[in-house]
This record gives sequence, C-alpha cells and structure tokens, in this order.
Amino acid sequence: MRTHIVYAHPHNGSLNAALRDEAVQTLEGLGHTVTVSDLYAMDFKAVADYDDFGPTENEHFMAAAGEAWDKGEIAEDIKAEQAKLLAANNVILQFPLWWFTVPAIMKGWMDRVFTNGFGYRPSRDWKRYGDGLLAGRRAMIVVTTGAADVHLSERGINGDINDLLFPIQHGVLFYTGMEVLPPVVVTGAGWQVEYPDMVKHLQGRLETLAETEPIAYRKQTEDYDEHKRLLPGRETEGTTGFALHIA
Amino acid sequence: MRTHIVYAHPHNGSLNAALRDEAVQTLEGLGHTVTVSDLYAMDFKAVADYDDFGPTENEHFMAAAGEAWDKGEIAEDIKAEQAKLLAANNVILQFPLWWFTVPAIMKGWMDRVFTNGFGYRPSRDWKRYGDGLLAGRRAMIVVTTGAADVHLSERGINGDINDLLFPIQHGVLFYTGMEVLPPVVVTGAGWQVEYPDMVKHLQGRLETLAETEPIAYRKQTEDYDEHKRLLPGRETEGTTGFALHIA
Repeated sequence: MRTHIVYAHPHNGSLNAALRDEAVQTLEGLGHTVTVSDLYAMDFKAVADYDDFGPTENEHFMAAAGEAWDKGEIAEDIKAEQAKLLAANNVILQFPLWWFTVPAIMKGWMDRVFTNGFGYRPSRDWKRYGDGLLAGRRAMIVVTTGAADVHLSERGINGDINDLLFPIQHGVLFYTGMEVLPPVVVTGAGWQVEYPDMVKHLQGRLETLAETEPIAYRKQTEDYDEHKRLLPGRETEGTTGFALHIA
Repeated sequence: MRTHIVYAHPHNGSLNAALRDEAVQTLEGLGHTVTVSDLYAMDFKAVADYDDFGPTENEHFMAAAGEAWDKGEIAEDIKAEQAKLLAANNVILQFPLWWFTVPAIMKGWMDRVFTNGFGYRPSRDWKRYGDGLLAGRRAMIVVTTGAADVHLSERGINGDINDLLFPIQHGVLFYTGMEVLPPVVVTGAGWQVEYPDMVKHLQGRLETLAETEPIAYRKQTEDYDEHKRLLPGRETEGTTGFALHIA
C-alpha cells in the first residue's frame, strides 16, 4: 500500500503538524509506504500561470495548458506531484479549514497539478465523476476547524461540513476518478477536543482506509442523461441540493 | 459610489479581461469611482504565512495574525487591499471558475486580507453573518465557467452553481458583513454564449447594483440560537442543506 499525504499548514509546531506526524507513523505501522507533500515546507508555487509550461501562442489558458501537456512541457514541480499521485493507492489531503475551504497553497496545488490532460481532458464525453486518470485510488480529507461541531452541522450557522466540502470531494477528488471516503473532521481544534481523542479517531480511520465505504457519489456513466442531468426518479422524493448527487 | 473589483485571470487578452474592462467602463459611465485589484498583474502574494506580519512567538497562526493586527504589524500589500474594501460601497469579485471555486490567487487574497481583526475577531459572540466590519457594502460575484448552464443546475452533474458558491458568498462575503447580490454567471464561456449577450447581461446587473435584492441569508443575530443553530420552525417544511440558511 502506498499512501500520499498532501499537507498544508504554515507552522510546523501546529496541531496539524502533530496530526500529520501521527498519521505517517500509524500508516507506516500498518505497512504503508508513505509520501508527504508538505506544501509550505516545499514553498510550493501556488499560482497557476504561463510559467507552468513552455512558451505558447494560445491565448486560452486552459487550452494552452492542454497543449503543453501534450508536448510534455509542464513544470517539473507539477510533474513530481503528478507522479506521487499516480504511484499512490490512497491520497490524503490534510489542511486547516480557512474560509470554509483549503488554504490558497492547496488550492494552487489543485489548480496546477490537476491540469488539462492530467485532471481532465475536455472532449465530447470526457471521463470524470467516478472515472478518469486517478480511478482505482481512494481519497480522504483530514481537516481541522476552529468552529465547533454544531456550527458545522446542517442547521449550524456555517452550514454542513459535508456540503462545504462537496466542491472539493465531489468536484475535484471524485471528478478525477478517486473514490472519496467520509472526511476526518476535527472540530473545535485547540479548545473543544482533547489531543489523545483526536489521534485515536484519526488512527481508527487510517486503520480502516481499505474497508471504509466511500461516499456514494453518482457516476457520470450511470445516473445522468446526455445533458449530464440527473435522470428523473433516481432520488428519494424530496431530495434537494448536493444530496441529489449521492445515491 | 465607489466600486472595487477584485479580479483574477492569468491572461490579459482573455474573455475575463474583456468583461472586466466592460464592467469598468459601464460603472464609470454610471458615475462610479472604480478601483481594480488585478491580482495576477499585481503579482499578489497568494500564500498566507508568517511573512505577513512582524516577528511573533505565537505558535497558533490565527492568533499570531490577530496579535499582529492589534499592533498594526500587517504587510503593506494587505493593508492596501483592506483600505480599498473600506473605501468601497460595492465589491465585485471576478474570476473564472477553477475546480468549482476561485483560482488560488484569489483564495490567497481572502486568506490574507480577511485576517484576524479585519475579516473576523474571535470572541464570545463575535460579529459576523450579516454584521461585521464590512457591513453596509454590497458584494457580487462575476464568474465565467466552461461548463454549460444545465451542468451547473441543481440536477446538473456539477451541482447547483449557487450551492457551489455558498462557501464564498455566505462564508466569506456575508460572513464579513456584506450584503450579497445574486451572482453573474457566464456559463459556456467561449463556446455557448455570444459576447454581446454576455456584455449586455453584465451591464444590466451593474446598472441595477443598488436596487437588486440581496440573497436573503439569515443573520446570526436573528435566526440562530445560542449554539448558532437555526431556530426550529424558521424554515419551510422539507427544506434541507444550504437552503436552510436562506430566509
């Protein structure tokens, strides 16, 4: 088993850093080969721009990226990240929730690494949502939040954490073909939960990585019509919002 | 009227750049003073880190940021962005939808500009969600997507664009006190819509900035209990997900 952790936190003495180290230790104890992309420590370039590929005449950024992909003219740091993903069976994204999503450096990792050709390739019926280059891998988010559990519940003022993570879990991880496990959410980080309890919870989830049931996001090839609209009657009556896209 | 546009696109010959220029022209024609933060052109620092403030012994990044705020030791580029927001009556965020949210450089703008003390200040009952430092301002997203309209509808495979934008519109813009207008969403950018139609739509929305009804996000002070949970019975029966947080 190979597990790749993509990690973003500005402080190496943080709770996040401690949880990352616990995760590495637990996974190695389970016999996994573990790789870590510590984005802050790597000073990972966060901004996707024309420096990410060779010279181009193409004014359309996404198309230019695809052209560069075809020619193999992608920045070396991007290629290195892609290679780590391809080599992994499991991919873990670990980050503190900043403004209800990933820190910018991790968004930049997504923007740059899941480039046109690797993360997607536009065509008439392109492979995505349950299919794609990264199919066969399992992904899991490990996120810490200052907010309490109740604030991130459905009736909580911030909205349900599962819905807040939908654009990442469904729109990035499942999109590129990975099966997505329910997230490990450490709420009330730093004030509400005890460190040993957090670690125990995280360890439990890592020990059961292989048998945990993934979120049942609907596959493009199964539940949608030719306009990529959910087929009528697939959902339980009364279902609305993102829940429509979970079987 | 002062309107501030925060804009992110790597190519100055793009559709986004053209729409930005049309917006500036329209707003100036309406008598607005317009400022633009063109994040790529400014080479805006995308990654929040300890270089954003003076030296600190505080290991907790968010707390350290708050400490620096109190001492006035925040990076000059952040202060400049904050000043533009404070001077504005309207704030427009314009970007291409990348992986169902903003490009990393704009996420970095949020992470860094809405720092502890400016975007929020933790306390027992801190001002946010309809209240906060930026109250009295109107905010609007202008977003272009390669995806077609139907793909970003509720039953569309990507999910409803309004739900996808919820973490930004509710979690950042409304959180910091701004009223949020329905977004201008240019779907099928580059293939499905004609440029003059896009411009006309955008112009119409800019001309009605002042009288457009904001999204009726619920205020922290009105619809939530002491645990920040939506009070029972506030919603129409059967409402679920993010829709619970809209009156």
